[in-house]
Amino acid sequence: MRPKGAGSASNDCVIDMRRIYMDHAATTPVDREVLKAMEPYFTKKFGNASSLHSFGFEAKKGLETARTQIAKLINAYPSEIVFTSGGTESDNMAIRGTVKEGDHIITSRIEHHAVLNTCSELEKHGVEVTYLPVDSHGLVSPADVEKAFRKNTRLVSIMHANNEIGTIQPIKKIGALCRKNRILFHTDAVQTVGKIPIDVEKMNIDMLSASGHKLYGPKGIGCLYIRNGVRVNPLITGGGHEHGLRSGTENVPGAVGFGKACELAARYMGNEARRLKQLGNTVTRAALEIPDSRLNGHPEKRLPGNINMSFDFIEGESLVLRLDEKGIAVSTGSACSTKSLEPSHVLIAIGLKHMQAHGSLRITLGKDNTRSDIDYLLEALPDVVSSLRKISPFKRKEGGRF
Amino acid sequence: MRPKGAGSASNDCVIDMRRIYMDHAATTPVDREVLKAMEPYFTKKFGNASSLHSFGFEAKKGLETARTQIAKLINAYPSEIVFTSGGTESDNMAIRGTVKEGDHIITSRIEHHAVLNTCSELEKHGVEVTYLPVDSHGLVSPADVEKAFRKNTRLVSIMHANNEIGTIQPIKKIGALCRKNRILFHTDAVQTVGKIPIDVEKMNIDMLSASGHKLYGPKGIGCLYIRNGVRVNPLITGGGHEHGLRSGTENVPGAVGFGKACELAARYMGNEARRLKQLGNTVTRAALEIPDSRLNGHPEKRLPGNINMSFDFIEGESLVLRLDEKGIAVSTGSACSTKSLEPSHVLIAIGLKHMQAHGSLRITLGKDNTRSDIDYLLEALPDVVSSLRKISPFKRKEGGRF
Repeated sequence: MRPKGAGSASNDCVIDMRRIYMDHAATTPVDREVLKAMEPYFTKKFGNASSLHSFGFEAKKGLETARTQIAKLINAYPSEIVFTSGGTESDNMAIRGTVKEGDHIITSRIEHHAVLNTCSELEKHGVEVTYLPVDSHGLVSPADVEKAFRKNTRLVSIMHANNEIGTIQPIKKIGALCRKNRILFHTDAVQTVGKIPIDVEKMNIDMLSASGHKLYGPKGIGCLYIRNGVRVNPLITGGGHEHGLRSGTENVPGAVGFGKACELAARYMGNEARRLKQLGNTVTRAALEIPDSRLNGHPEKRLPGNINMSFDFIEGESLVLRLDEKGIAVSTGSACSTKSLEPSHVLIAIGLKHMQAHGSLRITLGKDNTRSDIDYLLEALPDVVSSLRKISPFKRKEGGRF
Repeated sequence: MRPKGAGSASNDCVIDMRRIYMDHAATTPVDREVLKAMEPYFTKKFGNASSLHSFGFEAKKGLETARTQIAKLINAYPSEIVFTSGGTESDNMAIRGTVKEGDHIITSRIEHHAVLNTCSELEKHGVEVTYLPVDSHGLVSPADVEKAFRKNTRLVSIMHANNEIGTIQPIKKIGALCRKNRILFHTDAVQTVGKIPIDVEKMNIDMLSASGHKLYGPKGIGCLYIRNGVRVNPLITGGGHEHGLRSGTENVPGAVGFGKACELAARYMGNEARRLKQLGNTVTRAALEIPDSRLNGHPEKRLPGNINMSFDFIEGESLVLRLDEKGIAVSTGSACSTKSLEPSHVLIAIGLKHMQAHGSLRITLGKDNTRSDIDYLLEALPDVVSSLRKISPFKRKEGGRF
């Protein structure tokens, strides 16, 4: 790591500038060990896992080892893991594959768009959907879930932790209610697999979505855990791969990388979560000293390393771009939502005004972030906020200057 | 390359055995140059292409360069390329995304299962499907396509070249008939992109499926070409990626690899096709000298390097496994169909008896195959066929010995 701020003194600042990635909820770099595990499957063990020869057998072996590694991390059987192209496909498969016309789904207002937009799509085809509210910390109430049960409720889909504000939901309780009422329970765990412990047995989960690239594995690979006995119709049909549940030539290098990432996560998760929590708290405490700021999401029940703040009177986009100029990569709302000009549906759901939602900043720390990175961020942030406020069209009600 | 057969003389034959891959229709190794292009996108330029910071911009740039490289190879606009997880997803999207209850589809009996099983799935939901027959060489007749047109015909889906027998269809003529009748024309070009020239304009194609791993690119990435103005509903909904047509974090390294593979294919395709055709003809000529053998597919209109033979009285699986023992990787029927015990639907459609279909062998040559590999294969093949016939439960009608 180069000394703090050294890059900014150089003429050649584009090349020399210190770059700090703090957007790990959007995606993560592939771990060196993960890439090393993948490489042979590109060029040497490159066979089609369905082929009847040694190249195929090698590929198949890699695929099945990966399936076991993933299953182990969430306490599932390998046969319960279906490989997909990522979290969005997994969410689509869990919902579209279990619900038909006339059925009822219960979900929350703060789900990922992969769940929300799929549900609203199904509403056009005769499916009923209840979108549960959340409290000011972003928590879904299990009592609300229970109250929403109807005779035709087929599926409850509540995410494990939110991708924007990091709030961790009472999944185990919600799962138990579903189990008791014989309703399928799906959880989008894209943000939590490999970050905090998951046990599909103890947590009463019937289906769980995960994605490789959120835990230092590659993009383009994910999985849907489907409890033995749960019937899911395929989204993609063809050659009958993955026991007929997901056709298409298996992405072996991707799966191998995802598997390796899960193995590494199982090994390091505990210590890393403690470290990120500590770093996160340091950032939060310092950033809250900036006037007219607030922490979004739950103060305790949140993903380690997730800091979501609102700074009044400024635009989140400007904040992100200014920090980017200083080499710091962060986000405003979900990275997936930048196609929309609407403020984050999550921040609105927890009660923020439009202006506050627009002024939100999401910092998500990861394994390469050090205390020195935090110091660099905390030196830059107050200046950026203050300089943006100087040119802001918004004004404090009391008319004071920033 | 080690001298011919050297491995078999060694005690340590598992490690030393010469290994020759001749199953390029199932999958191909990733080209070294392709892997080199991908690598930075795993660990350095690893951002989420939707992110508003420099890591995101780098990723986005890689993604768009790839889109341009792919478009160029098939004479499309980059904006007409939608990234998917592979050929099977592309086929599903083209069909499920354009056809609704009450519509009629025309396809052929020799399509890939990604098309056939998707069509038969839709038949359960009120879609009508005509499965056109093919002639003994595997050709679809454009006149048959025209005769099958109905008032409610919405889509024609005919593959560019068959994955088993390599027969190349008269796509341009079929496309022209569709255009004239205002019917959408989709072609599964998974086997041909990067192998033989494709021009979506000249060939009157509205939608085209392609896959990275068939042309020395990575697995887990593909695309659907969608002509400007053609309306396709998404299969996978969520964050609105790919202009709302295919949600999910973009598989940037995969796309970059696919793009690079297309760029390389554009450069080498012409010479390589000539070379593979020549090698293929050498194999065919020699293999036809084995008694009771025949070439399946069209003698001329076939993919360069595709050799599909039937050897009477023996089982294709045994043939594949015996050749694998000698280090030669080939296939019987489609690799994707090994989940089924049924003989290849393609070989049955061109009129083979069940026994002949069961005794089929597919050899698909690729860029690393040399004349020396061919010699090695042609030395092994007659012995393997003859030794299997000695233990075959099938007998010649005239009762002669092999």
